[in-house]
Amino acid sequence: HTLNTLNDYKEYFITEMKHPTFAQSVIAEWWATTLFLFFLILSCLPGANDGQEVFRIGIVAGLTIAILVYAFYAVSGGNINPAVSLGLALSGRMTAPRACFYIAAQIVGAITGTAMAKAVSPRAFDLGKGGMNALQTLDVDLESIAITEGQAFFAEVMGSMLLVLAVLFCTDTARSIEHPHMTALIPLEIGFVVLLAHVAMIPIDGCGINPARSIGSAAIYGSLVHLWIFVWGPVVGACFAALIYRLIFAPTEVFNEYFK
Amino acid sequence: HTLNTLNDYKEYFITEMKHPTFAQSVIAEWWATTLFLFFLILSCLPGANDGQEVFRIGIVAGLTIAILVYAFYAVSGGNINPAVSLGLALSGRMTAPRACFYIAAQIVGAITGTAMAKAVSPRAFDLGKGGMNALQTLDVDLESIAITEGQAFFAEVMGSMLLVLAVLFCTDTARSIEHPHMTALIPLEIGFVVLLAHVAMIPIDGCGINPARSIGSAAIYGSLVHLWIFVWGPVVGACFAALIYRLIFAPTEVFNEYFK
Amino acid sequence: HTLNTLNDYKEYFITEMKHPTFAQSVIAEWWATTLFLFFLILSCLPGANDGQEVFRIGIVAGLTIAILVYAFYAVSGGNINPAVSLGLALSGRMTAPRACFYIAAQIVGAITGTAMAKAVSPRAFDLGKGGMNALQTLDVDLESIAITEGQAFFAEVMGSMLLVLAVLFCTDTARSIEHPHMTALIPLEIGFVVLLAHVAMIPIDGCGINPARSIGSAAIYGSLVHLWIFVWGPVVGACFAALIYRLIFAPTEVFNEYFK
Amino acid sequence: HTLNTLNDYKEYFITEMKHPTFAQSVIAEWWATTLFLFFLILSCLPGANDGQEVFRIGIVAGLTIAILVYAFYAVSGGNINPAVSLGLALSGRMTAPRACFYIAAQIVGAITGTAMAKAVSPRAFDLGKGGMNALQTLDVDLESIAITEGQAFFAEVMGSMLLVLAVLFCTDTARSIEHPHMTALIPLEIGFVVLLAHVAMIPIDGCGINPARSIGSAAIYGSLVHLWIFVWGPVVGACFAALIYRLIFAPTEVFNEYFK
Repeated sequence: HTLNTLNDYKEYFITEMKHPTFAQSVIAEWWATTLFLFFLILSCLPGANDGQEVFRIGIVAGLTIAILVYAFYAVSGGNINPAVSLGLALSGRMTAPRACFYIAAQIVGAITGTAMAKAVSPRAFDLGKGGMNALQTLDVDLESIAITEGQAFFAEVMGSMLLVLAVLFCTDTARSIEHPHMTALIPLEIGFVVLLAHVAMIPIDGCGINPARSIGSAAIYGSLVHLWIFVWGPVVGACFAALIYRLIFAPTEVFNEYFK
Repeated sequence: HTLNTLNDYKEYFITEMKHPTFAQSVIAEWWATTLFLFFLILSCLPGANDGQEVFRIGIVAGLTIAILVYAFYAVSGGNINPAVSLGLALSGRMTAPRACFYIAAQIVGAITGTAMAKAVSPRAFDLGKGGMNALQTLDVDLESIAITEGQAFFAEVMGSMLLVLAVLFCTDTARSIEHPHMTALIPLEIGFVVLLAHVAMIPIDGCGINPARSIGSAAIYGSLVHLWIFVWGPVVGACFAALIYRLIFAPTEVFNEYFK
Repeated sequence: HTLNTLNDYKEYFITEMKHPTFAQSVIAEWWATTLFLFFLILSCLPGANDGQEVFRIGIVAGLTIAILVYAFYAVSGGNINPAVSLGLALSGRMTAPRACFYIAAQIVGAITGTAMAKAVSPRAFDLGKGGMNALQTLDVDLESIAITEGQAFFAEVMGSMLLVLAVLFCTDTARSIEHPHMTALIPLEIGFVVLLAHVAMIPIDGCGINPARSIGSAAIYGSLVHLWIFVWGPVVGACFAALIYRLIFAPTEVFNEYFK
Repeated sequence: HTLNTLNDYKEYFITEMKHPTFAQSVIAEWWATTLFLFFLILSCLPGANDGQEVFRIGIVAGLTIAILVYAFYAVSGGNINPAVSLGLALSGRMTAPRACFYIAAQIVGAITGTAMAKAVSPRAFDLGKGGMNALQTLDVDLESIAITEGQAFFAEVMGSMLLVLAVLFCTDTARSIEHPHMTALIPLEIGFVVLLAHVAMIPIDGCGINPARSIGSAAIYGSLVHLWIFVWGPVVGACFAALIYRLIFAPTEVFNEYFK
């Protein structure tokens, strides 16, 4: 399909949207994000296993994403994260309107899932501040080191960038054909990025790297404190990943073209 | 085979049952569930590693399922869980009579396995209440938040639904042909659902999501308290998973047909 | 090759032994077991991370086996455990003389590896009793429950049986052809059996399930207390696994034949 | 290409270097090592989750390597470690000049990444001594056992040897053709070597096994104490791995040739 004018593009998308798999995909993104937030926020409820939240939340977040990508990859691509949809759209792997529908579905799903997790124990949900992302404090000996807004923003950019970069590599069909691990391990590797980012970043800012997750938690708990960090950090990270992928790491044909 | 009348169906199943692999499959479900309960209940014995039960039980439950699905998948499908057999039967992936035999074998296996685990230390087994699923209490600062029956039931529905949904996706041959990770990662992903569900739900209700597991533990310890939650929660979860899979996420041919 | 008389068998084995890959295989078993014991005993040194030995030893044992099976599978089969070699020989997957050479190499390797780990900190090695397997005590509230010899023996039989059963399934070429996960996941699944067995059994008896590992540790530390449990338990477990695999779970051709 | 004279070799390399993928590869090694050090040093910041650093650092180090190998394997081979590049060059899998460029890029990347991690919390970075590798002390009861320089050096040799050996096996195309797990699991297995080495060796010397990692940390924190151990230990380990791989474990054709 050559899409030269805006009209071509419109027509192309209307056809895409009328296909029954489009509705299926959007519902898939909604339901997958609902499930993700349900289990993630459940693992954030306080009062269980104090002192091991980092591993508990990390394992639940990472493995839930691994399972949901495994299951929904064939339906919608299994994005479950606005940063991922944005990164794919910026890299030309997904149409912009599809990305918009996905992002809306993810945000609604995150709110649904958080509300469902709250239902398991509303009191614990409130005492745990709804699993909201927040700036943390590092306690070293007698000193307390507060993480600043800028520092948390930087960490969010880096974590989201690693995630979106991994997604861009694994969905690059030009590369995955000759490298069998790329397609076989997709869900595991995506889940492992989420796991490691949580283990590394929970002590910094609770680890967002997913605007839908942070919005869902903020909406149900009812607080917008620092939310901008967890929305714009991942957005900047996704843009950065798409940029360096296209300019530097895309397969050689693209690379050659760029240097001509 | 076109199965139009009840008689056709009966004949079809009698042929299925006479095949030597049928007995082999039922024995496989019995033995796999025996091994699962042996190692799971062993990891529930108290007195070892206090404060880390969540990870200890979660890792043992998840990886044991990963290994047993890996080994027995080619023999019986490696269900090891009545909720999974029910979900497969409701989705037309397994005949109802086969599911009944499997479920009976799983329950007997769970009782065998729990009895074998009790033999390792009968005193620790009794002090640990036989690894029974039970409603937990979340201790936040000076407050104790008890989980109610309805809250545990809801968690069981959700956990089982995620598990059965993952099974339905991975056994969908229409989809797995074009997505190589689906077949290569089957045992790992099923094991990881079990792992994450335990890590997320042990502080809520000890994590059941497998009626055979809960019945085995209850039978050998000799208590039926709250057992209904851990039997009917997974049953509802499996029905829910089969329903949404068939209505929404089944491959497009089915989807198209449904909308016609 | 039809091996009817003892002489045919002798000749067949002499040819096998003269092949340059035979020496390569035996050296591989020696070196792999050396590396396994080095890292395993290193993780048993006390004084680091008290209270988390179960996970530390479990992760190191399981992942070291995963990597060594991954690397040496194509050279020698990556047994690294006399119980595995015995199980393979009893199942007709390996000649008996080869299994004898492998077992000797594994025991020598275990002694080498333990000695190398002792060199890292001889004092910590002695204070930690050389990482020897030993009967443990479960402390529940104010009560101390000692594990008996019979209980530890039973646990060793079960753990080794699960391991050898997993090996017999994954090396069954009749089955692995149609089930792609079987060959792709071999090293991970074998490593995960070792990981889960350690997490479940360290609080019981330190987890042996590998006679070479227990002999190596006992030889360098210089104590034979309870060693018989960790030698004969795995031997019985391997025999049990080979028996039930051949009688019950072998692919249908064998099964059919047995029932004729 | 037959490379008989030094001139042939020079010309061959100049052609290699002029190819646009060469610059892409070197940038990939720089950026991958930057990302690795960023997340690794972030997980070394003190004040979060005290008493669980071993697992926190181990999981972050291992899974970050798994993801980076997964992504960059198709671009540059995903070495991210001078010991790996050295081992590949010594085994004839990579030209020496390419290895030199890679090693330089890795060292610069490690410095970039450590500086970026310091930016997240300069004060915590300083209090945690910049995540530098250092000789540890094992506290057993009332006794303190200090690890000596020689002991740490030996551990570094062994850990690096296991890592480079795993890399040499998995990149051996003569073997991986008939063993599908070899190519499908590459990133996971390499990540798991890094994970287990950290879990086993952090209580000994903080676990280096990567000269770039140790140099990056030392450069930004500004201390050269014991740095030689973490540079030369991995170098000796890589040489040792290349030696035993070529002499003993290379596929049989090479082996046969060697014995002629």
